[in-house]
Amino acid sequence: MKIAVVAPSCTLKPEAAEAVAAIAAARADADLVIHPQCFLSDGHFAGPDEARLAALREVMADDSVDAVWFARGGYGSNRIAEAAAADLPPAARAKTYLGYSDSGFLLAAFDKAGLDVAHGPMVQDIARPGGEAAIHRALDWLVRRDALAIEPGLKAGQRAMAFNLTVLSNLIGTAVEPDFAGAELLIEDVAEHEYRIDRAMFHVTSSPIVRRVGSIRMGRMSEIPENDPVFGSDAESIVRDWCERSGIAFNGRADIGHDAANRVVPFKILSN
Amino acid sequence: MKIAVVAPSCTLKPEAAEAVAAIAAARADADLVIHPQCFLSDGHFAGPDEARLAALREVMADDSVDAVWFARGGYGSNRIAEAAAADLPPAARAKTYLGYSDSGFLLAAFDKAGLDVAHGPMVQDIARPGGEAAIHRALDWLVRRDALAIEPGLKAGQRAMAFNLTVLSNLIGTAVEPDFAGAELLIEDVAEHEYRIDRAMFHVTSSPIVRRVGSIRMGRMSEIPENDPVFGSDAESIVRDWCERSGIAFNGRADIGHDAANRVVPFKILSN
Repeated sequence: MKIAVVAPSCTLKPEAAEAVAAIAAARADADLVIHPQCFLSDGHFAGPDEARLAALREVMADDSVDAVWFARGGYGSNRIAEAAAADLPPAARAKTYLGYSDSGFLLAAFDKAGLDVAHGPMVQDIARPGGEAAIHRALDWLVRRDALAIEPGLKAGQRAMAFNLTVLSNLIGTAVEPDFAGAELLIEDVAEHEYRIDRAMFHVTSSPIVRRVGSIRMGRMSEIPENDPVFGSDAESIVRDWCERSGIAFNGRADIGHDAANRVVPFKILSN
Repeated sequence: MKIAVVAPSCTLKPEAAEAVAAIAAARADADLVIHPQCFLSDGHFAGPDEARLAALREVMADDSVDAVWFARGGYGSNRIAEAAAADLPPAARAKTYLGYSDSGFLLAAFDKAGLDVAHGPMVQDIARPGGEAAIHRALDWLVRRDALAIEPGLKAGQRAMAFNLTVLSNLIGTAVEPDFAGAELLIEDVAEHEYRIDRAMFHVTSSPIVRRVGSIRMGRMSEIPENDPVFGSDAESIVRDWCERSGIAFNGRADIGHDAANRVVPFKILSN
């Protein structure tokens, strides 16, 4: 299968691209095509909005591409997400899109547009400790829908969605906000203070749109900076508390996060 | 006039309270009553939600209180804002409420409930360089509606609102979201990276509710941490860009911010 890599947010490190290309070549089950746009740099971003959007639209419209794999997060996909999901060519509907973190803006916009998206490892994850496992997991899922790649708590017949909590908070009320009705919502975050997790949970669970979810599960909240003063509650208690306040069922923990263990969460309902 | 100080977010420093009480006593035009709740501490907050809400509701219901002055920001007023604005006693409608930063959740909820709110200096601002001027400005406005205290760009007959950008982003879509229709919206922020300012501007200006504003003016965005890599655009360019993208008029700069120069922005239309 042919997998196209583009970078709608920040620049992909060349050494990460090389390492992942080598893994794909050794597996011999995936033709990995890393778009040169991944290596552009324009301030914070992997090239200007126009270049990032053009590369993404190019691979979306390419009939020969089976999957679009986002190179990495960072910040910036929100700036092109609405345009990326507009006036879709038929080829865009015949492929899968995989990413997480800042890519959540695209997962949301594409899910809303009816495309087949999943929350899971990205190319730059090779740089994490144990990152090879994350790359293989992503490829195992993209190439052969390996059940072992999938977040273990997902249930057949139950729609699921997964987002970085801060990204989710920042897409509420925008044109890319998807339909959460009845879904199990998995959330994770990285490098946010407990007061910010609390504030984002307030924001997210106060939304009548988000309150349509069936339940919430919490992935890992990692690299939490020290709160000054001590916050008085940990991340899981914060998530539980806001679920309780908002009448959303809290279904426990999820095996997703900003780490190499991050499992795949397809938004499409699993049949088996 | 009697001014009650409560702390709906974080704990007020006793030395700040003493210094401001001394200023008020020397002026002799304001009877400043600092509620003991201001000095409670419960993890991140100035006491548990119940205690912060009870103190706020107590002074709101007190007929002898002419104004409620929020002690400081930090984080936490969102946790009690909806309850604070519910089932209001008549006395709550006969007074003024002043604060900014995290207090923006209360300004929003109270404005939505028809109360008389203003964005401006708080008690803890005495600790800033030149903080005495901020305290006098707040008192000058509370006691005698001194025109010099007011943000100089405000126009008679034109409704204005002011918010910390990050707070505003976190109240969109919640029960405390106010009506922005036709207002000039002033925004300021502190200690947020440029990528976060960009993301918050995306979020705020993408909201159809916020797009009802007549225009946006930008206060100070201070203590911006270094962006890695260099973002490629400064705060004003970011705000201008999102105003342009969303069709909101950008009206230039505003004299508000997390500093002693912070001027008062009454949400009530100025008549003179």
